[in-house]
Amino acid sequence: MTGEVISLPDLDASLVKITNSATPKTPLPPSKLVFGKTFTDHMLTVDWNSNTGWAEPKIETYGPLSLDPSSVVFHYAFCLFEGMKAYRCEDGTIRLFRPDMNMHRMNRTAARIALPTFDGEQLTELIKKLVLLDSRWIPGEPGYSLYIRPTLIGTQSALGVHPSSDAKLFVICSPVGPYYATGFKPVSLQATTKYVRASRGGTGSYKLGANYSPGVMPQLEAAKQGYAQNLWLHGPEHYLTEVGTMNLFVVIENEKGQTELITPPLEDLILPGVTRDSVLTICREHAAGQVQVEGLPSSDFVVSEKHMTMPQLVEYQKQGKLKEVFGSGTAAIVSAVNNIGYEGTDIPVPVGPSGLGNIAQAVLDRIQAIQTGKIDHPWSVIAGKATN
Amino acid sequence: MTGEVISLPDLDASLVKITNSATPKTPLPPSKLVFGKTFTDHMLTVDWNSNTGWAEPKIETYGPLSLDPSSVVFHYAFCLFEGMKAYRCEDGTIRLFRPDMNMHRMNRTAARIALPTFDGEQLTELIKKLVLLDSRWIPGEPGYSLYIRPTLIGTQSALGVHPSSDAKLFVICSPVGPYYATGFKPVSLQATTKYVRASRGGTGSYKLGANYSPGVMPQLEAAKQGYAQNLWLHGPEHYLTEVGTMNLFVVIENEKGQTELITPPLEDLILPGVTRDSVLTICREHAAGQVQVEGLPSSDFVVSEKHMTMPQLVEYQKQGKLKEVFGSGTAAIVSAVNNIGYEGTDIPVPVGPSGLGNIAQAVLDRIQAIQTGKIDHPWSVIAGKATN
Repeated sequence: MTGEVISLPDLDASLVKITNSATPKTPLPPSKLVFGKTFTDHMLTVDWNSNTGWAEPKIETYGPLSLDPSSVVFHYAFCLFEGMKAYRCEDGTIRLFRPDMNMHRMNRTAARIALPTFDGEQLTELIKKLVLLDSRWIPGEPGYSLYIRPTLIGTQSALGVHPSSDAKLFVICSPVGPYYATGFKPVSLQATTKYVRASRGGTGSYKLGANYSPGVMPQLEAAKQGYAQNLWLHGPEHYLTEVGTMNLFVVIENEKGQTELITPPLEDLILPGVTRDSVLTICREHAAGQVQVEGLPSSDFVVSEKHMTMPQLVEYQKQGKLKEVFGSGTAAIVSAVNNIGYEGTDIPVPVGPSGLGNIAQAVLDRIQAIQTGKIDHPWSVIAGKATN
Repeated sequence: MTGEVISLPDLDASLVKITNSATPKTPLPPSKLVFGKTFTDHMLTVDWNSNTGWAEPKIETYGPLSLDPSSVVFHYAFCLFEGMKAYRCEDGTIRLFRPDMNMHRMNRTAARIALPTFDGEQLTELIKKLVLLDSRWIPGEPGYSLYIRPTLIGTQSALGVHPSSDAKLFVICSPVGPYYATGFKPVSLQATTKYVRASRGGTGSYKLGANYSPGVMPQLEAAKQGYAQNLWLHGPEHYLTEVGTMNLFVVIENEKGQTELITPPLEDLILPGVTRDSVLTICREHAAGQVQVEGLPSSDFVVSEKHMTMPQLVEYQKQGKLKEVFGSGTAAIVSAVNNIGYEGTDIPVPVGPSGLGNIAQAVLDRIQAIQTGKIDHPWSVIAGKATN
């Protein structure tokens, strides 16, 4: 079986067939954009079959998918996705941010539900072609970008629960504005003890569709009680794990008087976020003196991947040693937390006057400078010159 | 919000618009049927929108769904389903088995991911119309039936993770043969310690698509080691929970010398199976002397919903007191287990000469007699006379 799979055609960007849309749309003015509701003129689709491998990629007019009602995606959640962004830069280039990280994670997620893997560099090449073709949709205003959504679904028409013999990879693109259009707005969290997001031996570390719909009802319950998002805990110890659909960072003054940036270790509960990795890398390189990042502490700065429980967080807060809590993710990059409701008590969390703590602000500035090419950095991958 | 939802139109079977297929297909001979691969001429679809409620139901030619690629079902696993069966009976009627149980569970599952609920009796009425329209597809041979797949998906075109403003309910039907075409074939299980199916605070007790695709890779790993299915465990104690996509039953001789039928309690880890409930009810009524079921022990018979660990099961086996292990579900009704691989050791499980233990055989016979109308019972619901 394995030998057979290896000999099948892999994804091949050189075979792409591009058909320009005969009915191009008029992009909305940037100020009217709502996250993920407007899509560009074109989309990429590639079909896969277990006997014939990856077919010829197609870039065509954005439009509906036609699928048999017995397709396994509708019944057994054979679906997974990635989120990434393209930026229109001042030098006229369109740039992607760390696409290799998304490709690696997408393949790892696909394997977890027995959907086909593929050559990630080939998909990155195809995404470059797609965003360049639709580059007129990428706003140039600060904070704006093109959100890119690679998606993989199982499409076999059969009701048995087994690996899907057919799959469809597609990529759609949506121009987006700054997540917080009117300045940073810190959010309050409900530390959720009734529901779990992930568990050991489960799928929490994969970007599967299956991890998302179950979070909606807990979010509505948190909202009813006045909280914006869930702070997902784990185990009777109430270990901190994630916040909403973002990774979690906590900044404390530790026992040695150092500023310590803490995020839970990946293990199998935590999504390996691209922004999470970027925050950790930027802060570690700064702490090690390899790179000087403006706004990060000039000394006594420690970066840790380690467990923290809610009772520990409460204790730091009581001692005045809780400095910041923020989420990280592709959509908002960072999102500050100003309050955590836990077992009937609201725990206030400091936020700076800008609505963002010092560390969050510093990593945000650094990441945005890299994404938009203001700082030359290998994480920023040039797709090409904007054609329009 | 709640008040608003209540005033929206609920599902109404009397509004159904039936369009007969202009291109009816020729049913396969029963012997050629493969589970869930052949579908009848028609399908039911009903659309829902958060502002307008449930639309007019439509029964039309079976055919593809056309959905925007940004539909939330493709990204966040907004999907759930039911499995139920219709039988062609000797008195010329078509009968459903306990449809109220499926309707109740489908609504409970829908609410868990913020998809719309509906009047279950109305959906049952619509399903009756659909199976009668396609009754020529229901084989009359013993062990054959029409598998019915009600499905509900979120169809909003938007990439935010929030309740879907649109949904589509559809029902498709597939004629199926006996699950074990050549007599009962007991299966071997791998007691799975690397992966979990469900966890406390998770979604294991809901019939969500999200519970199914994550089980495929563990099943392939079990198969590589020569086991047919996973025996899903929970916690460091290795509590028995489910087997593959079925509920689990264990029969032992207990400390009092009684025959004890044990299944794990529902709590939030176990799917509330219709067949599970039927097995429990039949055995409890027999044990209480309310109904005499042929093949069940005439005395000293106890039925328990309680926890059992793998070490406990191993101990019963060593003492010669493990009598049967079987799964229960709509597709196979019961499925016998003859071996469990656990931490490197194979634990043999007795099976009768027919390939099925005494208790499993007795409940199977009873359930089939009710399903096909041979025993008159309120669980068997007449859809109407077969029209062709």
